[in-house]
Amino acid sequence: MNRETMKWWGWGREDTAFHHDDKPALRPLLLDRLGVDIDIPAAGPPHLDDLHLPQPHRPEPLTSALAAATELGDVPVERLTHGTGKSLRELVDLRAGRIGRLPDLVVYPGDEDETAEVLRLAAEHGAVVIPFGGGSNISGSLRPPGDETRPVISLDLARMNRVESIDTESGLAVIQAGALGPELEDHLNAAGWTLGHFPDSFQHSTLGGWIATRSSGMQSDTYGDIAAMVAAVRVVTPRGLLVTRPLPGTSTGPSVLEMILGSEGRLGVITRATVRIRPLPKRRVVLGYLYPSWAAGLRAAAAITRGEARPAFVRLADAEETTFSLSLRTGGPGRTGKLLDAYVRTIRRQDPRQLCLGLVGYEGSPSSVRRDRKLVATSVQAEGGFAIGAGAGAVYDRKKFDTPYIRDFLLSRGVHADVSETGAPWSRLPGLYDEVMTAFRTGLAESGARGSVMCHLSHTDPIGACLYFTFAVVPAEDGDLSTYDIVKSSVQQAFVDGGGTLSHHHAVGTEHARWLPEDVSTAGAGLISALFTATDPVGLLNPGKIVP
Amino acid sequence: MNRETMKWWGWGREDTAFHHDDKPALRPLLLDRLGVDIDIPAAGPPHLDDLHLPQPHRPEPLTSALAAATELGDVPVERLTHGTGKSLRELVDLRAGRIGRLPDLVVYPGDEDETAEVLRLAAEHGAVVIPFGGGSNISGSLRPPGDETRPVISLDLARMNRVESIDTESGLAVIQAGALGPELEDHLNAAGWTLGHFPDSFQHSTLGGWIATRSSGMQSDTYGDIAAMVAAVRVVTPRGLLVTRPLPGTSTGPSVLEMILGSEGRLGVITRATVRIRPLPKRRVVLGYLYPSWAAGLRAAAAITRGEARPAFVRLADAEETTFSLSLRTGGPGRTGKLLDAYVRTIRRQDPRQLCLGLVGYEGSPSSVRRDRKLVATSVQAEGGFAIGAGAGAVYDRKKFDTPYIRDFLLSRGVHADVSETGAPWSRLPGLYDEVMTAFRTGLAESGARGSVMCHLSHTDPIGACLYFTFAVVPAEDGDLSTYDIVKSSVQQAFVDGGGTLSHHHAVGTEHARWLPEDVSTAGAGLISALFTATDPVGLLNPGKIVP
Repeated sequence: MNRETMKWWGWGREDTAFHHDDKPALRPLLLDRLGVDIDIPAAGPPHLDDLHLPQPHRPEPLTSALAAATELGDVPVERLTHGTGKSLRELVDLRAGRIGRLPDLVVYPGDEDETAEVLRLAAEHGAVVIPFGGGSNISGSLRPPGDETRPVISLDLARMNRVESIDTESGLAVIQAGALGPELEDHLNAAGWTLGHFPDSFQHSTLGGWIATRSSGMQSDTYGDIAAMVAAVRVVTPRGLLVTRPLPGTSTGPSVLEMILGSEGRLGVITRATVRIRPLPKRRVVLGYLYPSWAAGLRAAAAITRGEARPAFVRLADAEETTFSLSLRTGGPGRTGKLLDAYVRTIRRQDPRQLCLGLVGYEGSPSSVRRDRKLVATSVQAEGGFAIGAGAGAVYDRKKFDTPYIRDFLLSRGVHADVSETGAPWSRLPGLYDEVMTAFRTGLAESGARGSVMCHLSHTDPIGACLYFTFAVVPAEDGDLSTYDIVKSSVQQAFVDGGGTLSHHHAVGTEHARWLPEDVSTAGAGLISALFTATDPVGLLNPGKIVP
Repeated sequence: MNRETMKWWGWGREDTAFHHDDKPALRPLLLDRLGVDIDIPAAGPPHLDDLHLPQPHRPEPLTSALAAATELGDVPVERLTHGTGKSLRELVDLRAGRIGRLPDLVVYPGDEDETAEVLRLAAEHGAVVIPFGGGSNISGSLRPPGDETRPVISLDLARMNRVESIDTESGLAVIQAGALGPELEDHLNAAGWTLGHFPDSFQHSTLGGWIATRSSGMQSDTYGDIAAMVAAVRVVTPRGLLVTRPLPGTSTGPSVLEMILGSEGRLGVITRATVRIRPLPKRRVVLGYLYPSWAAGLRAAAAITRGEARPAFVRLADAEETTFSLSLRTGGPGRTGKLLDAYVRTIRRQDPRQLCLGLVGYEGSPSSVRRDRKLVATSVQAEGGFAIGAGAGAVYDRKKFDTPYIRDFLLSRGVHADVSETGAPWSRLPGLYDEVMTAFRTGLAESGARGSVMCHLSHTDPIGACLYFTFAVVPAEDGDLSTYDIVKSSVQQAFVDGGGTLSHHHAVGTEHARWLPEDVSTAGAGLISALFTATDPVGLLNPGKIVP
């Protein structure tokens, strides 16, 4: 199989990495917050030769039957890239040489028939199948259970990556599940259309993966999350091909489509989806706004979202994330930054350390963009905010997929950085933010480590939004996840205790599974569990994910 | 229990009925289409005394335990109103004295605890529970299976009908499931809010019923259907209280909320929901448009829906439904109608018999309504349509909940009238319309009866819309459903054969169950079935609905 997967030990392409040489404000910030000097030469990336991969469990009859039925992977590193996602735990474990259980075989079926045959053979030979898209999952959804004794097959959808058809009358496209973000967007764009789904992982994740994890893109504010975009699916299941229809609405019992969305491979292999597409907008601009405080920014964001403007996205960084963003500027804050600082202090009489950066993305016809900008300006001004032009937005747009590389950069410098995100109603967001911050600090104090946390608001909706926390801790020693575990648990617990969800769009996997009953109630988790158990009693499909 | 239920033998209130005396154009139209003279005195409504209700099966220990736990109904007619919905089949059967299996007991729990106790007692005593909202279901969802030998309990939510709280910051309201449309809208309106859900049944259906059947209201075009409005539910299940959270988005596996939506009582009793509400619009106006043909109207509707305008609804009647609507005008078409006719013939050179009436509802701020009207006008004119002002819209708004009464009027005159509706992508709608019309005529020819059919488009969405067919057949004799069965089956079959859904918003029940595997595929129906069987193996909850 030709398609490149991500580097086995970190995010993204082998030839791409984060550098700080041209960002003078970053070093002092991290020195202050974490006590870490990023100028000290970092550890290099790990070497594959240093790792001891466990022997694969490949019973002959199964292996040769699979080889006859479809394309089989034969490079050892494939077992690594397919058996681990990109959660901090997985990256730290890999760097520490803790490999765990890996898939025994990687297969690349070229169509639904081959996919069905893989499932049939797996069932016949008592094996396990774990579907694989781009490998970007950060919730443990790709890992075989540590104690799995059956052969484990990773089923990679890479060969099913085409846009099959576009229905221009209905605004629908049929796309194979293995298509990566850029593969499908390039194809749609060439025809004048866009799906408009841009998660952080966009460059390395697939349509099937988005569906299987209920992904949400940066423009979900108006484009909707993947659940709102998917009109129909085709899924190879142990009981035959599941096919739903693209419909504007339907009243056919509990939604089969919504059972597949978020199923993380437990109900079958998603092979194709019909998605809602939109004409490429005539005009697109991202504008920056500064607010005197987090609270003011939250109120403005709520007002914008509930008003008549329909911006493609509304984001708001808290003061700490605003500071961090500015520290990533090439050449530092520069003249504009200093002028802004003076303006805020002397003219607006606001505390620059409390300033929060907001971004609003506008898309549509020129007249609709004009109208939305006016409506937004009113909400911004009502909260003491002011516009700062298109500069910050342009930087955001250019760098928006690069953030995950920073984690590897920090990991090589002994810093464990990760994200936890939630969603809640507007009325709960200010309180929830405070509670999470307290939980983080309490967890940190308990562990005795240094650390820092920042947050932004995104994925707005009339009833609420996502709070996206990025945190970093400095563990006592390399490979020690105990500090991370304490802090991550504290944050997750604060989510569900405070009326939020365990994850707005990062899935359950194994990382978040223990909070599921607190989020959807024990009876709710029971429905999910019943669904899986009744349709797959032997655990043929990605066992142990979402519910034990 | 004090709340009035609908008349047992037909739609709505006892003191309300449809009359034709003031509508001179209706008689000639029906005479022409059906050969029925509505001036001939009709059969009166049936008398309860003429019916022989089967003896209820009320084992003493269960009955007294229920009486101790909650409020028990004690009026014989309650068994009729609770054991039948308002499908044509049920109304014809009742008029013909074919009662079938009725509930043995009707209970009115006042809260979740009483509801849970009813479920517990039912399970302990081997009984069946069928939740009841307003009784307006037309898909057989309320009927106990004919061969049910266990005691059947109808659980009426009427005492749980309050709006509990309004979260003005988040635009959310917590409402008890037994609230009828007017009960909850009046309460919300008084506080300046609206749910915006107006199904035909609005006056006689409940929030819980809407959720259990995936209802869609007349303004679903922008307000969304009930699935889009419901942010969270509370459900009493045999395995405890199921509670989901109101969230702007979540990534917690297959959606538990979407399992409850459309579950028709098979997973539990919905007791409460958190719904998205909106401020009452500052301005509201419904405008009429005339199109030279159905095809032109369809193209205009698609263009409007996919454009930047956000009208509250877009409707389009075909030529036959346009004629029918005009025939319902008090005093006939009148001077305006005649002038219009002349204008169309002589100035626009269009065939008045092909004219199709469109309605567009506008809501929002005055400036947004102005903008939407302009955008819509462009799409209308591009298809040769023209605006006819606010008259038709005002009539529609005033009469929109009255249509179901016409069915009883016709039934008393020997005419079986019913509706079948579907949804499909825009690209399929013209073809599907033709296929359904052919199927209707073929079915009619097969049965040898007279009949007529008309259609409107509604519930528009960027990817498609609902086609809503209203048909009438004249059976060979009173109470004979064979013609109806042939025609209804032909229409439903044409839906699923043509890429539509078996029902856009009328649920599955027993009427549509046989088409479910063709709609969601056998594997999809298998997921639904597995969910029900795994969580309720003995069929405690509304057995036999959706899937056998």
